[in-house]
Amino acid sequence: MGKESFVEQIADIEKDFPQWYTDVVLKTELVDYGPVKGTMVIRPYGYAIWENIQAELDARFKATGHKNAYFPLLIPMNYFTKEAEHVEGFAPEVAVVTHAGGEELAEPLAIRPTSETIFGSMYSKWLQSYRDLPIKINQWCNVMRWEKTTRPFLRTSEFLWQEGHTAHATEEEAREETMQMLGVYKEFAENVLAIPVICGRKTEKEKFAGAVATYGMEAMMKDGKSLQAGTSHFLGQNFAKAFDIKFLDKDGVQKYAYTSSWGVSTRLIGALIMAHGDGRGLVLPPKVAPVQVVIVPIAAKKGGVVEVCEEIKQKLQKMSIRVEFDNTDASPGWKFNEWEMKGVPLRIEIGPRDIENGKAMIFRRDTLQKESYDLSTLTQTVQELLSAVQKDMLEAARVRRDGKIIYAQNLNGILNGVESGNFVKAGWCGCRECEDKIKAETAATARVFAEGETAEKCAVCGGKAEHVVIFARAY
Amino acid sequence: MGKESFVEQIADIEKDFPQWYTDVVLKTELVDYGPVKGTMVIRPYGYAIWENIQAELDARFKATGHKNAYFPLLIPMNYFTKEAEHVEGFAPEVAVVTHAGGEELAEPLAIRPTSETIFGSMYSKWLQSYRDLPIKINQWCNVMRWEKTTRPFLRTSEFLWQEGHTAHATEEEAREETMQMLGVYKEFAENVLAIPVICGRKTEKEKFAGAVATYGMEAMMKDGKSLQAGTSHFLGQNFAKAFDIKFLDKDGVQKYAYTSSWGVSTRLIGALIMAHGDGRGLVLPPKVAPVQVVIVPIAAKKGGVVEVCEEIKQKLQKMSIRVEFDNTDASPGWKFNEWEMKGVPLRIEIGPRDIENGKAMIFRRDTLQKESYDLSTLTQTVQELLSAVQKDMLEAARVRRDGKIIYAQNLNGILNGVESGNFVKAGWCGCRECEDKIKAETAATARVFAEGETAEKCAVCGGKAEHVVIFARAY
Repeated sequence: MGKESFVEQIADIEKDFPQWYTDVVLKTELVDYGPVKGTMVIRPYGYAIWENIQAELDARFKATGHKNAYFPLLIPMNYFTKEAEHVEGFAPEVAVVTHAGGEELAEPLAIRPTSETIFGSMYSKWLQSYRDLPIKINQWCNVMRWEKTTRPFLRTSEFLWQEGHTAHATEEEAREETMQMLGVYKEFAENVLAIPVICGRKTEKEKFAGAVATYGMEAMMKDGKSLQAGTSHFLGQNFAKAFDIKFLDKDGVQKYAYTSSWGVSTRLIGALIMAHGDGRGLVLPPKVAPVQVVIVPIAAKKGGVVEVCEEIKQKLQKMSIRVEFDNTDASPGWKFNEWEMKGVPLRIEIGPRDIENGKAMIFRRDTLQKESYDLSTLTQTVQELLSAVQKDMLEAARVRRDGKIIYAQNLNGILNGVESGNFVKAGWCGCRECEDKIKAETAATARVFAEGETAEKCAVCGGKAEHVVIFARAY
Repeated sequence: MGKESFVEQIADIEKDFPQWYTDVVLKTELVDYGPVKGTMVIRPYGYAIWENIQAELDARFKATGHKNAYFPLLIPMNYFTKEAEHVEGFAPEVAVVTHAGGEELAEPLAIRPTSETIFGSMYSKWLQSYRDLPIKINQWCNVMRWEKTTRPFLRTSEFLWQEGHTAHATEEEAREETMQMLGVYKEFAENVLAIPVICGRKTEKEKFAGAVATYGMEAMMKDGKSLQAGTSHFLGQNFAKAFDIKFLDKDGVQKYAYTSSWGVSTRLIGALIMAHGDGRGLVLPPKVAPVQVVIVPIAAKKGGVVEVCEEIKQKLQKMSIRVEFDNTDASPGWKFNEWEMKGVPLRIEIGPRDIENGKAMIFRRDTLQKESYDLSTLTQTVQELLSAVQKDMLEAARVRRDGKIIYAQNLNGILNGVESGNFVKAGWCGCRECEDKIKAETAATARVFAEGETAEKCAVCGGKAEHVVIFARAY
């Protein structure tokens, strides 16, 4: 197969979205399959996106008073049994170390699937007095959850994430923290990933194992399915009681703390791909794109072209813009395809005639539009266009999504709605039977409560509606 | 025990260096013991040092053309057997996952002790042509080596590190990479950690399992023992042959690549503590100190003191200096002790009389000297002093070390030398028997070759000396 035709190697996004996803993640070299089933190798192009995500989030965590730390990978198995719901939720997917240093261990150790238990055990040791509160610690690490069916970024046995764990003197403060971090995630998703998200509380069935309340943010992918892009949990005193996280309060009384936890993972890279990608491949928002601008010379052998390209590259680098000058031997057309597939937000094309006219062409990956701009003010134009792309991508995603949120009055309406790729809002009585029935008959799950909305009747049983719920098929 | 006396809780550094180390790491809240034997929790104050180390090193790796990626934690056990020396070196300390997802695995999986094998397997898949070379990838991750005797930062079953893995078309290029990264480590150790290091090749006995040649950098701790602070390995074609890392060269011939690997770990935090610490606790170089400047008000309740402190804090923050204003209720004396134990490079003291005189006191943690400076130019003074501390700490460490490098002509000389806390240079014939004898009789090991130095006779057998070797007891 010739180099010119490689874009055809990506499956048609309209006809086979799952295959399109697999093709895009592999062919853009975001990721590869690891030797152990269900594992992934995050390749440099994919990892650079993760580094940008980390930098943006980490700054937000620190600005809200959190500090980073690192807790051990291995957790004694008996820790999981201390919180009844937690063990039920996580024990089935744990990977277990039974041998080490050539010997069988006295007690098997779990590779962390999440770290509430080990943070809890240390907080119990560290916490003495109300003066030690709040404790607000985050960690960036790998976690492992053994899954039967895996897909790169979306569901793999090992993935990277951050997990924040906090302890507070009062319920009110822990609830505020839970909501604050949900807000941080939402602002980040919209302003950095350019993905509009719907935030809200989850049903009992969908909440985190061990939480009092779980809040999620849901993002719509281009196939109309939902991806849970982050969660924030109010844990009440569940883990405090299980791990004896107590403090002497101002009034001289020993009390249990209230805790929260919250996390986002490398799933966000999957969200970026499926929220913005198109038939040509990736479309990356400038704030996380490893390469924000690529410069492609036209007729590079003609005098002056390379020099002008090089000069622009250096000017953009000085402005802290991530820029590549693609001066390889491949044809411009081949380069266009490659960098478009890789989702680079802007492409600058410069040929001898452009230079003669004091112009350069700039191609926008998000709108597929190409325009001619003055060379003399090109760097400023680039900066303005990067801002515009960032803003317009969010707006375009919002318009796409908002056109695919519908209401349903009954089970059939939910089924039709999700089958045609919508988020479906429907009244729900609050009972588990109705929630289970919706899942069984439509393959949709309750994503989050539509906060502030009300309905008269439950779409399943016709009983009084307690909530309006957003139902969707989900990754 | 009253708050004023807590410095006494640190063991005497002159009398019991190991206990001093343990006291310092725990009481300054750098680290705590994890629930599983041999594991550590890196607490926020310790992790902030690691973040500073990471930022400094990562910029150097990227400037030398490396990209970050992430490879899986779990490695099929059979990978280790593919390189004969490698399996011998690492199999005994591997932790093994035998069960996952509620089932016994068909093949046990190792938690990576190092990742040459899994990088090798992926490079084999990715590498086709000489055009794909060099491949220069680094990863920041956790690794696990099951150890019998552990100490926080120095030797723990799990630790954090970075591991660079590169593949090249020629031996020369791979050797250049190996030496370049050793040079990057040395420059970093000296200019960032303020630790002078001796770099050189290791003996066959001490080299990395699977390497052709290992180069190490050795740092002297305050007890005269050596700490291996980083290594860089030229792997020849050993892993290329074991993992079939081949490429089609320009001449149309399939060839094996040459590979290198190199790493530093959270051990560096141990090195910082033991290279610079003193009777009062930590002494941190400004470039990695989580807090570079602490402001302590004297008689804070007097008018204007808090305001002046706050103003200075804000000015320093604007200069990107990491500053804390300690405005708690504790006494100034208690605060002095605490921040000295924590190794903060500069302390600014401001009281009502200072303000009247337009002055402030600045205490230098490294020299324990206190001087009065003009308030009007204080921020500039702070910046100059931070640079001076950074530079002077390296110089002081170099003087300390250079005074404790001696030469020995025989085994007794080596024994006496290391017993009184020196690095001992001695001639060595190159045979394993003599090297083993030195270890057996002096508890010292061959650290690195003293490059460029020559001796006549082997200090053990009296035979012709092939190398001058630096012997020391080591962490």
